[in-house]
Amino acid sequence: MRAQGGSPPRVIMQLTEYIGARRAQVDEALGRFLPSPPAFPRVVYDAMRYSIDAGGKRLRPILTLAAAEAVAEPSAADRAVELALPAACAVELIHTYSLIHDDLPAMDDDSLRRGRPTNHVVYGEGMAILAGDGLLTEAFALLSNEPPDADLAPRKIRAIQTIATAAGAAGMVGGQAIDLLAVGASTLDKHSLQDMHARKTGALIRAAAVAGAIMGGGTTSAIAAVEEYGRHLGLAFQIVDDILDVEGDAKDLGKTAGKDAKAGKPTYPSTYGLEQSRRLAADRHTDAITALRSAGLAESRLADIAHWVVKRTN
Amino acid sequence: MRAQGGSPPRVIMQLTEYIGARRAQVDEALGRFLPSPPAFPRVVYDAMRYSIDAGGKRLRPILTLAAAEAVAEPSAADRAVELALPAACAVELIHTYSLIHDDLPAMDDDSLRRGRPTNHVVYGEGMAILAGDGLLTEAFALLSNEPPDADLAPRKIRAIQTIATAAGAAGMVGGQAIDLLAVGASTLDKHSLQDMHARKTGALIRAAAVAGAIMGGGTTSAIAAVEEYGRHLGLAFQIVDDILDVEGDAKDLGKTAGKDAKAGKPTYPSTYGLEQSRRLAADRHTDAITALRSAGLAESRLADIAHWVVKRTN
Repeated sequence: MRAQGGSPPRVIMQLTEYIGARRAQVDEALGRFLPSPPAFPRVVYDAMRYSIDAGGKRLRPILTLAAAEAVAEPSAADRAVELALPAACAVELIHTYSLIHDDLPAMDDDSLRRGRPTNHVVYGEGMAILAGDGLLTEAFALLSNEPPDADLAPRKIRAIQTIATAAGAAGMVGGQAIDLLAVGASTLDKHSLQDMHARKTGALIRAAAVAGAIMGGGTTSAIAAVEEYGRHLGLAFQIVDDILDVEGDAKDLGKTAGKDAKAGKPTYPSTYGLEQSRRLAADRHTDAITALRSAGLAESRLADIAHWVVKRTN
Repeated sequence: MRAQGGSPPRVIMQLTEYIGARRAQVDEALGRFLPSPPAFPRVVYDAMRYSIDAGGKRLRPILTLAAAEAVAEPSAADRAVELALPAACAVELIHTYSLIHDDLPAMDDDSLRRGRPTNHVVYGEGMAILAGDGLLTEAFALLSNEPPDADLAPRKIRAIQTIATAAGAAGMVGGQAIDLLAVGASTLDKHSLQDMHARKTGALIRAAAVAGAIMGGGTTSAIAAVEEYGRHLGLAFQIVDDILDVEGDAKDLGKTAGKDAKAGKPTYPSTYGLEQSRRLAADRHTDAITALRSAGLAESRLADIAHWVVKRTN
């Protein structure tokens, strides 16, 4: 819950500063939590680090930290964020693995990601597959190892359930499988399009927020509200991504604009047109804020992040 | 602990019957624990099932169940096995994913496994990568979801730590990465050969046994003894595997004999010769039994399984 009524006004930090500070916190923790050689053989460690260090928005881990902060009492917010930091990093490890595998020649066959050569271009296909496998597995090692406090085992188990279900065949892997088979079918029926995106992109974004609310010690109703928020935010994110793919330029996106359309992939603009796609994104934004409001979380950074997701240009 | 002194003699079940019964238990549970469509999209579910249903020895999950049985009081052995069944299945899911990814063209490029076409031959490379990713992720969903009892959270967390560390870049993934780069270097130095095998094959076999001891409620010293046993057993398994690769015929192995040697991969026979490799396997067997004896577990099925591993012909 945010401070109410008579509480001293919290320091107002601009959203961009907030995001920058959280991103730095995540980057530092990623470096700290990942075992280095000789625990990990140098060859695969280098390939794993290459993609982690490629940066990116760090939207998912920032969402995890913001959710932990949102559900905690203001005086306990720093501690809640600390407890959620391993889960935040685990979600980013999983996101990074998914990008490496999606970029493979047998999948999307991308040679450029975040403005740099993709993992398999640098390390070869075999090592890129292994780097992805290593990042995915390490996410669960991290989730089980940290924080080490014995009394957090129930929260950790629940966070692992949430993240594993979202990342697996019921979620991200299943969405990517549908996507893989849908190439060439540039209009998928609307139900299938939403199902694919809800799995492929939405599930992990939702799980990122929920895991933060769990690790931060949120109540059942706060966790449920964050889940509803995450569901809408995940769809909004994907719709905006599809719009940017049509409108953006290669420099901003760090990848080739119009690529999905060229690959014959079904997208929101190809299915609904640009104008209606924009309205759909705005509706999801509204629904996300409504979900927060239901649990008194509308003044939290989660609301600001929803704004960022919908208004972003890359 | 096994029944001692005045306890009624346990029913003597031949090892082959014991293994057959445990294998059937694992096969049944694998079918039950894996979510089916529409939770998992049909396309990726079919690819995942294809490799799970290909069978195999089920050595690792049987080891998990036998370890749980070994560390429990005889009257609580059935319950211990029940508690360890999800971990047993999770280990088999991880083993199966590793076979799918190892068989890919970018890795070992195998078209035959357990006498059937490999996953990517049937479903294509992209879907095979996803099927592997799905199996790996599902292992952690299963480990966190089952058994559902809230008071088991600490054991479940410990089992996840054990399995994730063994499967990841510190273990199996790291070993495969070393192996991938070692192709062509048909003699690796002895330290590197053992390090590669300890990671690639040994780590998950050890973790399979340890996870069973943890879920079965073993004491700290029993778990430590099972870990030591598992370490020696894992190496014995790999040495015997290398020997069989030279000696076996394609029918028994379900794959092409002499394949590793032809691929220019370093093996125990190529490094030590056949005779000394056999002695090394026998030494590891002895060490495994010694570890069991130190915790009073030498009369358990774990000892029989060690015998099976060293004497097997496929």
